[in-house]
Amino acid sequence: MTPFKTLHPRQALAVLLLLALPLLARATEPLPSWQDGPAKKSIIEFVEAVTTEGSKDYVKPAERIAVFDNDGTLWSEQPAYFQVLFAFDEIKRLAPQHPQWKTTQPFKAVLENDHKALAAAGMDGLLKIIGATHTGITTEAFIDNAKTWLSQARHPKTGKPYTDMIYQPMLEMLDYLRSQDFKTYIVSGGDTAFMRAFAETVYGIPPEQVIGSNFVTQWQVQGDQPSILRTAKLAHNDDGPGKPESIDSIIGRRPILAFGNSDGDLHMLQWTAAGSGKRFMGLVHHTDAKREWAYDRQSSVGRLDKALDEAKKRGWTIVDMASEWRRIYPFEASLPEQVQ
Amino acid sequence: MTPFKTLHPRQALAVLLLLALPLLARATEPLPSWQDGPAKKSIIEFVEAVTTEGSKDYVKPAERIAVFDNDGTLWSEQPAYFQVLFAFDEIKRLAPQHPQWKTTQPFKAVLENDHKALAAAGMDGLLKIIGATHTGITTEAFIDNAKTWLSQARHPKTGKPYTDMIYQPMLEMLDYLRSQDFKTYIVSGGDTAFMRAFAETVYGIPPEQVIGSNFVTQWQVQGDQPSILRTAKLAHNDDGPGKPESIDSIIGRRPILAFGNSDGDLHMLQWTAAGSGKRFMGLVHHTDAKREWAYDRQSSVGRLDKALDEAKKRGWTIVDMASEWRRIYPFEASLPEQVQ
Repeated sequence: MTPFKTLHPRQALAVLLLLALPLLARATEPLPSWQDGPAKKSIIEFVEAVTTEGSKDYVKPAERIAVFDNDGTLWSEQPAYFQVLFAFDEIKRLAPQHPQWKTTQPFKAVLENDHKALAAAGMDGLLKIIGATHTGITTEAFIDNAKTWLSQARHPKTGKPYTDMIYQPMLEMLDYLRSQDFKTYIVSGGDTAFMRAFAETVYGIPPEQVIGSNFVTQWQVQGDQPSILRTAKLAHNDDGPGKPESIDSIIGRRPILAFGNSDGDLHMLQWTAAGSGKRFMGLVHHTDAKREWAYDRQSSVGRLDKALDEAKKRGWTIVDMASEWRRIYPFEASLPEQVQ
Repeated sequence: MTPFKTLHPRQALAVLLLLALPLLARATEPLPSWQDGPAKKSIIEFVEAVTTEGSKDYVKPAERIAVFDNDGTLWSEQPAYFQVLFAFDEIKRLAPQHPQWKTTQPFKAVLENDHKALAAAGMDGLLKIIGATHTGITTEAFIDNAKTWLSQARHPKTGKPYTDMIYQPMLEMLDYLRSQDFKTYIVSGGDTAFMRAFAETVYGIPPEQVIGSNFVTQWQVQGDQPSILRTAKLAHNDDGPGKPESIDSIIGRRPILAFGNSDGDLHMLQWTAAGSGKRFMGLVHHTDAKREWAYDRQSSVGRLDKALDEAKKRGWTIVDMASEWRRIYPFEASLPEQVQ
């Protein structure tokens, strides 16, 4: 065979491009929205160590599991978890079908934007709101509701769709890891189906790599048509120790990289750290009151206290958002590069 | 750039091989252990329809989810589910640490190979045996036990390791699907961790694509070392309606291909069939008493009754093992090709 002689010019071009790809890839620096600071350095050093064949830290592609919390790690979580804001909006949308909500707490509080009454209803009240908006319908219908809301709702502070309030540096990190044959997972406290409504289009993370909290579901058949009903019973709370438990039951491999931002991620980070070989544990530290929010030890949403102490003690990577990220959201301009 | 002029001869060879690959792939017929019968034809027709770009039945790679039952579909399940035989052997191995088992049912029956007493202990007895051998230890320790057993135990009829008693035609089908960018999953009634002990090396199916029954697990820390404990509480029974429920909660996409062999697979097949677009539903029918076993409507293991009726009614693919498979196990020689 003499393949080159038979190549059409267009085929030759394709071969040329194929051959040039590795060079092009190397020409494009990964993580452009990260300052050339300690966090970026630690990420790249880790990835290069575990992907370089022959390195003592080499990890084969099948075992390159990377897990990310969602709220506060991949997108913002202020002034409240976005899924809670979705539930409030759903209560308003569904209210005409539930006239009794006008006079029953906690629904009345949501309908009247009564923050004080809502706070008084506490966790029990919140669970009722979640139950009324997240269960008693099929998975398919629930995901449709979430998609509709995500396409219409706007964030109270920025006026942007919630799916725009994702962290550009983390998107770049997900892409970078996938380009190095990592399998990127979400392991987060949010409802699995809610996150699946946007994870694939927004983060490039397919449904089967989204792990969250979920309700017991139930097969049902209406007429000839089967569907999966979301019952009101919680099956799994994917927070704290629930994270390594779901990693063990659903992934069945220990991650080599984990990223979180709060004490709810501590067990997942510990689980990752306790494996053998080189590991990467990262925390997003919300330090930028101007471009995003600044909060940690005292916050009711995304409290970062014990995990911050442990990260400092163990030498995990702490991403100081204000100083390490040149850009936070994709819709912003980048800050200039800092001279380190 | 003039890439060809600068190619080293070895590089030129690499390019040549790359260009020749599609031809080589086409030269190798898929599914060599299948007779050229209706089942093989229906598999290839389906795969070509959903993978041909521009075809009205085209399905993009991310949505090519294929789910397979394990017992009786990928490996044998006679004279009993292999996992049950593992549990019996584990009772014998662990007996010295549990002297009371010598006088307590159902353990006494296992230790004395007393089939009658075992049968009398029924499902309750079996659950006690499973509990004593499958729970109260960490996931890691349990998988180690399963791997040790799989490497040592031999099947009572063939004298082969259990992991040799896998169906060569199904291995070829898994390979064929993966070569066409399908993601192959196990969705089976067996214990998830038990199946993960061999699925990757034996079937090429990684742990994160193995879905089965599982126990509630619990994060624990001993000293500085975290681990995941398997408690005695069943979390999910992955049989019947439990199969589409776990597909919905763990995969989050509806499969386009499902393969089973018993009534326990009926709901998974119905769930797959009820999706839009082209679908493939298949059943292995155990019809070969000589090379494997013959059983269906009256069997206590892998009963195939309602699903057989539904498959006939709906035109699903029924694989008549005796006539469609030239070879059953990898260690056998192939039967000659049949003239159809």
